[in-house]
Amino acid sequence: MTKEADVVRITTDKDELTGTVLPSSDEKIVMLKLSSGYNIGVPKDKIKKTVKLEQKKEAKFPEAQGKQKKGLPGISLIATGGTISSRLDYETGAVKWLMKPENIFALSPKLFDVVKINTIEKPFMIASENMSSEHWIKIAKEAAKLLNKKENKGIIITHGTDTLHYTAAALSFMLQNLNKPVILTYSQRSTDRGSTDTVLNLTCSAYAAISDIAQVMLVGHASINDNFCYALNGTKVRKMHTSRRDTFRPINDLPIAKIHEDGRMETMQSFNRRDDKKKVEVIDKFEEKVALIKYYPGANPNIIDYYIANEYKGLVIEATGFGHVGTDEAKNNWLPSIKKAIDHGIIVCFAPQALYGRLDPYVYSPGRKLMEAGVVFLNDILPETAYVKLGCMLGREKDKEKVKKLMLQNIANEFNPKLSEKAFLF
Amino acid sequence: MTKEADVVRITTDKDELTGTVLPSSDEKIVMLKLSSGYNIGVPKDKIKKTVKLEQKKEAKFPEAQGKQKKGLPGISLIATGGTISSRLDYETGAVKWLMKPENIFALSPKLFDVVKINTIEKPFMIASENMSSEHWIKIAKEAAKLLNKKENKGIIITHGTDTLHYTAAALSFMLQNLNKPVILTYSQRSTDRGSTDTVLNLTCSAYAAISDIAQVMLVGHASINDNFCYALNGTKVRKMHTSRRDTFRPINDLPIAKIHEDGRMETMQSFNRRDDKKKVEVIDKFEEKVALIKYYPGANPNIIDYYIANEYKGLVIEATGFGHVGTDEAKNNWLPSIKKAIDHGIIVCFAPQALYGRLDPYVYSPGRKLMEAGVVFLNDILPETAYVKLGCMLGREKDKEKVKKLMLQNIANEFNPKLSEKAFLF
Repeated sequence: MTKEADVVRITTDKDELTGTVLPSSDEKIVMLKLSSGYNIGVPKDKIKKTVKLEQKKEAKFPEAQGKQKKGLPGISLIATGGTISSRLDYETGAVKWLMKPENIFALSPKLFDVVKINTIEKPFMIASENMSSEHWIKIAKEAAKLLNKKENKGIIITHGTDTLHYTAAALSFMLQNLNKPVILTYSQRSTDRGSTDTVLNLTCSAYAAISDIAQVMLVGHASINDNFCYALNGTKVRKMHTSRRDTFRPINDLPIAKIHEDGRMETMQSFNRRDDKKKVEVIDKFEEKVALIKYYPGANPNIIDYYIANEYKGLVIEATGFGHVGTDEAKNNWLPSIKKAIDHGIIVCFAPQALYGRLDPYVYSPGRKLMEAGVVFLNDILPETAYVKLGCMLGREKDKEKVKKLMLQNIANEFNPKLSEKAFLF
Repeated sequence: MTKEADVVRITTDKDELTGTVLPSSDEKIVMLKLSSGYNIGVPKDKIKKTVKLEQKKEAKFPEAQGKQKKGLPGISLIATGGTISSRLDYETGAVKWLMKPENIFALSPKLFDVVKINTIEKPFMIASENMSSEHWIKIAKEAAKLLNKKENKGIIITHGTDTLHYTAAALSFMLQNLNKPVILTYSQRSTDRGSTDTVLNLTCSAYAAISDIAQVMLVGHASINDNFCYALNGTKVRKMHTSRRDTFRPINDLPIAKIHEDGRMETMQSFNRRDDKKKVEVIDKFEEKVALIKYYPGANPNIIDYYIANEYKGLVIEATGFGHVGTDEAKNNWLPSIKKAIDHGIIVCFAPQALYGRLDPYVYSPGRKLMEAGVVFLNDILPETAYVKLGCMLGREKDKEKVKKLMLQNIANEFNPKLSEKAFLF
């Protein structure tokens, strides 16, 4: 018999496993958290022997080991949930959220030497796969409020990794007249693990938040080594690995800067400079009737008709190659449905399924036909960014022609006019 | 006034452009093919002056400059369309397909010194974005027929790039008891351009086709240099760039081999060896009621209900992170719709939206809930491969539990049990 929060040694036919018993909703499985930090499910009928070694206590966040120093630049923090803000409570099995500023310092005591933290806002605490546009709007409003306070040189937003790049794109479009750095950061490995990336990510984020770069940036591990981070454009970044600490990669872009753990910063491209006198405003509108659709061989175009019937206002299609979908010679010709959608006033945009490189509707005749039908070809944009942008633009502008123009306008570096060869698989 | 197929020099306010006039379906635009090979559309109202320089003749494929040599190993070719098989006919504006074996030799005369081409089959000629499962089945049948002929050491299939990786996955699952190399190759730059990749790709493909590796492989440029190719697993490859010649990259995998232009071959992982005595068979069934869906913040789960109502049999969801979608704390909870789909007998699989890395439903409790609901977590599979595999498995097997088991079985290297760090962004 095992009890939650017990540390046990389990013997099966094949293995001997030592770990902490986690809550399991399948009564035939014992869930174990191994010392590696990974969880494993052991079928009860395979267990030969169980030895209880000790019992874990309620999860406690480490307390701050010092006090805030005077004379350091001030920043503020917005915590929104995710691994970086959580500890598993072994007693109850629930995730506990980081609630006190002292906990943040304790996670990364180096912050003490770089910045003074003025406030920590917690508009909500959730896992990032559960976010949607109303969360982006809440974060944007909170961010604007903090950015417009003189005491803050910049802000850091902590966030789950799953959809962090969608939020980064949303803030890039929602925050207008940006004056100071807006840093999004994360943790891929939980803070109670030796291999946690929290310390370096928070330290580099602090340096970025007091820098001269007045952009929405995602800051995190540059490689699997634990020595420097990249600051990446919020509209040109994607989670590219399920577990690596350097999961966030620039797509069709280079990093804005390399940030060393001692605060040295090497910029790698031009950027918008800080202007503390500017006043940030938020465009807090997002059209929810927007969908992201992937084209693939055999895909039935009826899916477009489904979105027409459900009165969607915008569609982003992940097209193949230079911007193609099945047309005349295909069994599933998408052209008639796309034309019908456009006739119904739906904005239909294409983004590259390949992720890297640009669309080019001029190379082959089907591309020209699609463009003539009114499809908006979004150059080298990321499909995820295209979805977020289309929701933002349809939210703020009712005139369809203006929306189409806005979609092609480079608003927040979502297009890269100078695509370097180095930007492929960076 | 410009006429199609004329070579003209056009002067606008800003530029002087020289190129061949292409057909344009927009009468306000003159389409020009520049000497760089790229096409450009010039609005007629911006044109100040047009000078006609010469007139192009009908597209001719270069003729073979030699004859097939005796004593070389024999292979056969299946041509299916795509840039590699096409020339633009400047006279008519239509794409012309490569029809005679001699044309192939002329494209890459080096082939003469490596192989003897026995037959060239042309089951159809289309742009690859127009393919669907019936094309995969036709290619598979043609391939099996050729592979079972003693005279062929292997086969080469030429194909458009847009959906080549989907076809590679389909052949990997459809061809059973494979005896010899099956090589898929392509061209990213048209064969009438100086920068064409056709020559190297075809030469390396010939070496691969007579090698000892009895697998379905995609062979093409390894880098932007024109000196060697990679042979990539048909189930672990993706088009990652819209225009680069080295667009096809291994995902969660290393190449099977590096192939130099002189035929030297360095294998980089273990492979199935040639066995000419085996007889290839085709499983020529594909369930068309399968869909590939991408999850994103704000995505409405009603899309699942749409597929239930349309009697789909299988769904592959591109999930975030370790395998997540919006659940309990989200505005758009996907769990009830997913459960409903599973209750209706639909196989619901998850594949990683991040592309690289593995899914792991054990790390966070929502993952465990989804797995308990019956979602099949497909480890480190590519979403595109997952879609193709699910269609193939539902085509061949009616028992749902067996389909679920097959989906988790490593049939054609779609899972990589030994994921190396080097395989990230290779």
